[in-house]
Amino acid sequence: MAPSTPSAERFSARVAHLQSSAIREILRVVNRADIVSLAGGLPGADLFPVDALARIAAEVLATDGPRALQYAETEGHGGLRARIAERLPAGVPFRGPDEIVVTQGSQQGLDLLAKLFLDPGDEVLVETPAYVGALQVFRFIGAKVTFLPCDAEGARPDALAEALRRRPKLVYLTPTFQNPSGVCWSARRRAEVREVLAGGDTLLVEDDPYRALWYDEEPPAPIVAGMDPARAVYLGSFSKTAVPGLRVAFLCAAAPLVRTAVLAKQATDLHTNTLGQHLLHRFLGDPAFDAHVSGLRRAYAARRDALDASLRERLQGRLEWNRPAGGMFLWARLAGGADAGALLARALEQGVAFVPGGEFHAQGEGRDTLRLNFTHAAPARLAEGVARLARAIDRG
Amino acid sequence: MAPSTPSAERFSARVAHLQSSAIREILRVVNRADIVSLAGGLPGADLFPVDALARIAAEVLATDGPRALQYAETEGHGGLRARIAERLPAGVPFRGPDEIVVTQGSQQGLDLLAKLFLDPGDEVLVETPAYVGALQVFRFIGAKVTFLPCDAEGARPDALAEALRRRPKLVYLTPTFQNPSGVCWSARRRAEVREVLAGGDTLLVEDDPYRALWYDEEPPAPIVAGMDPARAVYLGSFSKTAVPGLRVAFLCAAAPLVRTAVLAKQATDLHTNTLGQHLLHRFLGDPAFDAHVSGLRRAYAARRDALDASLRERLQGRLEWNRPAGGMFLWARLAGGADAGALLARALEQGVAFVPGGEFHAQGEGRDTLRLNFTHAAPARLAEGVARLARAIDRG
Repeated sequence: MAPSTPSAERFSARVAHLQSSAIREILRVVNRADIVSLAGGLPGADLFPVDALARIAAEVLATDGPRALQYAETEGHGGLRARIAERLPAGVPFRGPDEIVVTQGSQQGLDLLAKLFLDPGDEVLVETPAYVGALQVFRFIGAKVTFLPCDAEGARPDALAEALRRRPKLVYLTPTFQNPSGVCWSARRRAEVREVLAGGDTLLVEDDPYRALWYDEEPPAPIVAGMDPARAVYLGSFSKTAVPGLRVAFLCAAAPLVRTAVLAKQATDLHTNTLGQHLLHRFLGDPAFDAHVSGLRRAYAARRDALDASLRERLQGRLEWNRPAGGMFLWARLAGGADAGALLARALEQGVAFVPGGEFHAQGEGRDTLRLNFTHAAPARLAEGVARLARAIDRG
Repeated sequence: MAPSTPSAERFSARVAHLQSSAIREILRVVNRADIVSLAGGLPGADLFPVDALARIAAEVLATDGPRALQYAETEGHGGLRARIAERLPAGVPFRGPDEIVVTQGSQQGLDLLAKLFLDPGDEVLVETPAYVGALQVFRFIGAKVTFLPCDAEGARPDALAEALRRRPKLVYLTPTFQNPSGVCWSARRRAEVREVLAGGDTLLVEDDPYRALWYDEEPPAPIVAGMDPARAVYLGSFSKTAVPGLRVAFLCAAAPLVRTAVLAKQATDLHTNTLGQHLLHRFLGDPAFDAHVSGLRRAYAARRDALDASLRERLQGRLEWNRPAGGMFLWARLAGGADAGALLARALEQGVAFVPGGEFHAQGEGRDTLRLNFTHAAPARLAEGVARLARAIDRG
């Protein structure tokens, strides 16, 4: 019997807003050994702390196995939340055990916030460009997404002030080594935006997964540092500092908001996987963790430099970019307004993949931009990728 | 600075429907060594396959560590999905790799289905009583929940036929050793309901986490077996057969629905934790898995018998119950319509906890019912719990 398709009228209204990320679609295509992928948002698996986690997994299962494999509290492992609190950047105003909830990746933090704050038609402000995973969540729930104009220091305070007059529900910002732009907002801009936000009642959601990945100097304090705690949410993650496959991240906010988020999480997935939380609890308490993050910084800085040097050697004048000071991505613009989507097709023929920048923008904008990941591949492979990219641009 | 509370008007409309599960609240109270808890829905941690999982974790991390800790496909580990397909009960019409998505517990399967099908005001049919985690999801998204009358064989087909005339979006059923009732629908009733459903266009969501936990004889085939695949969704889980802390479960449906569910999952949490999927992939391919499940059946059958025998010894005439043929719960009713909520307060004084049945019902109903878990505690502890419960009832 050939299955019939469920009739479209049976789906909810929000399914009309459901879009696949072009990135995930590209990743399906480029999972071939002959393609150099600068497309994914993957950390370097060759740098994962596999041995440390294997040792810790053996310890956890030998000493606390039944508890590490049982159902657990929705808000997350108490010891892990305490270690998260100790390691929050200076100034983040959420240190109490009732101000942190462990989430299944930061993506779940966004899903919970969308559920708690967004009715269809509600407005959310984001940067230009913006993280595509956040755009998916906000659009799926039926929110109206407004892109704020940005410059090299961050979102423009005048434009933000103007937009806040409409009392949008949320402003979602990734000011530290953003995906995709790599931009790190200046301390001055953070202070200006903090002040503008203090005048309204829009909730700031600051997403900060890349903070530890700085290669030149430590980034300025988060925007939430010093803000009214009732107007701010801070998202952090272990996907970039430890490993992403455990899906352990956290949401920090004032206790009343966290209590509501915990209820929403209870209805969403009961709790984050227990074993991953136990592993990270011990890893954070182990000297191997800080040593690992220091090593990552050195290795990723070398990869960033390799990508930057190859681009200077091969694509000077045909591509514009800023050498990012941290994070995982280099953001570039094609000279002469060329179309990055059209370039991708030629690039795949040459054996290299990247993400065209259009999907990080409002519909139809940013078509000459592209995102290049530098954390996944080793330096020699990055150089080969750039050589192929140069050939694809030459043939345009 | 004392944090101000975010103003209630800023929350979404759906937050008004957000309720904590009374079960989770009771669990907070009873996490004390001096209380015998018959309240939770916890499997017996003393029976977990800790040694097998420790051995498998060491193997996975030694041979495939980077992949087991990296970001992964939203739809789930391909090898795991193939093993899930092989082990689906006879007749389930979803065997293809594009008909299964791995979820973060079955709770996430329910969250995804709610997102895909339910707009505020849409109707969902459930059994009386119904699984409280499902009620939370459906109510949070603003759906109207209708409780179907049930008897010892399952939901009443005449009432279902009547309700289907209103074209509800979903009918959610847990026909095999239900939480909380323990009821296993007869094969005849399953066939009748299958036939009634064939006449409408309401999607059946069959939740089947307890199937492997039968103690007397294997349960009848699922309701979805033999149905039009476009009208059915089948949810299964490893929380009860392996361990719940890995949060690995699965949703099976026709390929077009699974594709849409994968998009929704992408926006929800990117993917289920990779390490848990790799562990279960190997555990399912290991002879230790089937041996473990057989052992569980024997151990849980002994616990069920211990609870049943203690109740017969101590509470005959003051409590009515059916000895469940599988699953994790014994469902009981207080003689003379006594209130189980009032009893709980006295029971906690005596050092025993259970879940009053009201929250599995429509508002205000089922107040004389209670749910007793028999899988978490060993037989002697169950007997002690019943002795304390008898004292609490005596003092009523």
